[in-house]
Amino acid sequence: MIHEKEKKPLILVSNDDGFEAKGINELIKAVMPLGDIVVVAPDGPRSGMSSAITSIEPLKIKLLENRPGLTVYSCTGTPVDCIKLGIDQLLDRRPDLVVTGINHGSNASICVLYSGTMGAAIEGCIIGIPSVGFSLTDHRQDADFRNAAHYANLISKKILEEGLPRGVCLNVNVPNADNIKGVKICCQTDGQWIKEFYTSEENGETQYWLTGEFDNFEPDNRDSDEWALANGYVSVVPTKVDMTAHEMIDKLKHWELK
Amino acid sequence: MIHEKEKKPLILVSNDDGFEAKGINELIKAVMPLGDIVVVAPDGPRSGMSSAITSIEPLKIKLLENRPGLTVYSCTGTPVDCIKLGIDQLLDRRPDLVVTGINHGSNASICVLYSGTMGAAIEGCIIGIPSVGFSLTDHRQDADFRNAAHYANLISKKILEEGLPRGVCLNVNVPNADNIKGVKICCQTDGQWIKEFYTSEENGETQYWLTGEFDNFEPDNRDSDEWALANGYVSVVPTKVDMTAHEMIDKLKHWELK
Repeated sequence: MIHEKEKKPLILVSNDDGFEAKGINELIKAVMPLGDIVVVAPDGPRSGMSSAITSIEPLKIKLLENRPGLTVYSCTGTPVDCIKLGIDQLLDRRPDLVVTGINHGSNASICVLYSGTMGAAIEGCIIGIPSVGFSLTDHRQDADFRNAAHYANLISKKILEEGLPRGVCLNVNVPNADNIKGVKICCQTDGQWIKEFYTSEENGETQYWLTGEFDNFEPDNRDSDEWALANGYVSVVPTKVDMTAHEMIDKLKHWELK
Repeated sequence: MIHEKEKKPLILVSNDDGFEAKGINELIKAVMPLGDIVVVAPDGPRSGMSSAITSIEPLKIKLLENRPGLTVYSCTGTPVDCIKLGIDQLLDRRPDLVVTGINHGSNASICVLYSGTMGAAIEGCIIGIPSVGFSLTDHRQDADFRNAAHYANLISKKILEEGLPRGVCLNVNVPNADNIKGVKICCQTDGQWIKEFYTSEENGETQYWLTGEFDNFEPDNRDSDEWALANGYVSVVPTKVDMTAHEMIDKLKHWELK
């Protein structure tokens, strides 16, 4: 019998680009030295799925690999479904860490809200597991993940040592740059997407394709994640599950709502 | 020519249960007296879609109704897609208010993160429009929305008068109770879902169905939205787009990440 304290850390890995994506396979390699790995990842691309859950139809899984130190499942659901299934059904003990990514493309600023990769990390955090999502600011399938993998290892190791407070996970973005200047702890940049669609016609019907430009409302804020990325730093944003605007509670109490 | 100031407020309405749901039709009736209404809602149920966006395929819309004061479109996408399409493509001016719901079922506590109805309200907020999501704690198709519609009117009117600060929207939940005691301004309850799946077998394959029980970590917190709902109050949680855990930034700066 192995005593609890002799067990290696158990690390649950997921993403939103699917189990076949280069990014998740680079992440698996990056965290393999840190513990036993269980991957539960979507069976295809689920980009932009945010914290979506599948409630109407059942989920199915496939066991793809099962060797000492590495077990891999694919799942028909969303990134959040993968985390829920992993922790509720597939793992034989509570994981010590949830890591997601490495996403093909940035999840900085408000993209944290749309990202399936961050949805999965936030889900780990809701369940009370230290959790982190990693993204590289290069959406190409064959992007170079070497720098991102280095920081994924470094930051995952640090989280295993230090822990994270309940309700807080990390949103880590790595710039697509040769010479990274270091890590900056940041806030989520204030901004929005504009010019969000282009249209085409098919059989006389308009089709709307999502596209867009990011409008950064605070390009000079050196504490923001977009500033860090634009200037060659890895951005780390502590991200919380509690979305309450606490500072507004007293103000709203003055509203007459009868 | 109508002068800008003579125009009625323009109100964009969406939901995640689809344009045919009773809840959105009750919401339309509730806000009709307050302005000109444009509805852009999913063409079928999109419950649990969070802030998901559709990036792989194009969106299509149908114009279902177009009379003075009320225009209704259905859309093939997610609730967030509906808001983006409405504001970027379909409205002839910027809306004064985004209202979503009335959701069939509670979106209190962490359900704010999974909810498509709240995803749509948060999207309005990202775009800089005062936004509010309404939910009734009764998921039945034929739920009684009279109380919820009353509060939807009252709160929407108040937002049109008072505005909301940038980056903050409201998550309003109405209890399924005959005698509502009033409105409470609340924080998002800390909790999580447990026992999240039941399984069945089909052709020798396990199917995982999402279900679960809500585990409230602070049942005695009288400032929480779950407490308000359990005690007969409408809960109003000011909800923000900035997910940064600002209080963690200085702590993380002491981590050695090299």
